[in-house]
Amino acid sequence: ELSERLEGFFVPKRLAGRKVVLTAGPTFEAIDPVRGITNISSGKMGYELARACVQAGAEVVLVSGPVSLPVPAGVHRVSVAGARDMREAVFAALPGADVFIGVAAVADYRPLEVAEHKMKKKDGILTLALTQNPDILADVAALPDAPFCVGFAAESQDLDAYAEGKRRKKGLPMLVGNLVQDGMGADDNVVVLYDDAGRHPLPRAPKAEVSHGIVAHLATLLAAAGR
Amino acid sequence: ELSERLEGFFVPKRLAGRKVVLTAGPTFEAIDPVRGITNISSGKMGYELARACVQAGAEVVLVSGPVSLPVPAGVHRVSVAGARDMREAVFAALPGADVFIGVAAVADYRPLEVAEHKMKKKDGILTLALTQNPDILADVAALPDAPFCVGFAAESQDLDAYAEGKRRKKGLPMLVGNLVQDGMGADDNVVVLYDDAGRHPLPRAPKAEVSHGIVAHLATLLAAAGR
Repeated sequence: ELSERLEGFFVPKRLAGRKVVLTAGPTFEAIDPVRGITNISSGKMGYELARACVQAGAEVVLVSGPVSLPVPAGVHRVSVAGARDMREAVFAALPGADVFIGVAAVADYRPLEVAEHKMKKKDGILTLALTQNPDILADVAALPDAPFCVGFAAESQDLDAYAEGKRRKKGLPMLVGNLVQDGMGADDNVVVLYDDAGRHPLPRAPKAEVSHGIVAHLATLLAAAGR
Repeated sequence: ELSERLEGFFVPKRLAGRKVVLTAGPTFEAIDPVRGITNISSGKMGYELARACVQAGAEVVLVSGPVSLPVPAGVHRVSVAGARDMREAVFAALPGADVFIGVAAVADYRPLEVAEHKMKKKDGILTLALTQNPDILADVAALPDAPFCVGFAAESQDLDAYAEGKRRKKGLPMLVGNLVQDGMGADDNVVVLYDDAGRHPLPRAPKAEVSHGIVAHLATLLAAAGR
């Protein structure tokens, strides 16, 4: 923690006086008391970005799905499981927030019904009815007094089309895109930043360094927007 | 690692000369490149039991689903994701094994089809067709030259009925049962051992200590069976 604070000492205070709310990690949607649907997400990118925001001088609330990562120094973490819990925790943290960054790999669907007791094995094919989860990022971005919203898109193909499409559909000023095969679970990442001015690729780097690049871009857009 | 080896020095060598194959952790069954079905399992019980077997003098192969735990000293770990991979790794490790212990929370079902690319969100209710996974423990126990097989049952209710039922159905000489709410994710556990002579509850204890109790019972049954 001392080394984290020392390292943070030399980071430009681009987010001084700002409050940032982030989500990170996967969500876990229960099927029964022992089974569930989840997303592959180590949480590393979100945790590194939370750390970079603190080092840039921000007050940071990190709403996190189940991961086994230590809380970065100075970050206030709120732990959740499902997407609906995550949405509730985000909305509780939003008052006063200047920036919202949705890094979490939120499950798009959850089981329509959750079994109270462990389901017993049956022969043959089983169908599981799934219902759509709330879209936390779209909901936050649609608020009349929305903070500056940054999305993340992890795709397995056609990154530019999917990422820029997601950014426009949700009305986000900025989105960070990456290919699943480039960053998932790894310590390094290759990302492309999308905004109204176009695409801005960042070089492959450790997630900590990528995070500082994202913060720098975010702070520039935030200032340019006169916020 | 030194403290582990020192601690192991004082453990009775009840499994000297034995080869033990264990499974631990959850399995992860892919829905698409980023989503999947999983089970809640920290892997702690299986890893502690693998450690206890090494300390009791056994050669240990631990076939593990995705967990974030260090490999116990002296244990040979094989990492897998889905149930079919786990079955393959278990069968590859079986030659020469005296004991097989199935601790893993293996997903009973996997998606019938795995999407090659990330599925895009659609409105409304979605159904996911699931097909049954192989039953690794039952398959091992049914081998003509089966090792001494130990099962695990984590139930949310009616432990005695479900656990003893599972033991009989799979033809296991020994099964370790616990209630989900007692042990899942925790460092402590309360287990009941089931065998042909009946039920043998162990007191609540750290998983490391519970593991030594399981090994002692297992070694006694193994000797009594003249194996």
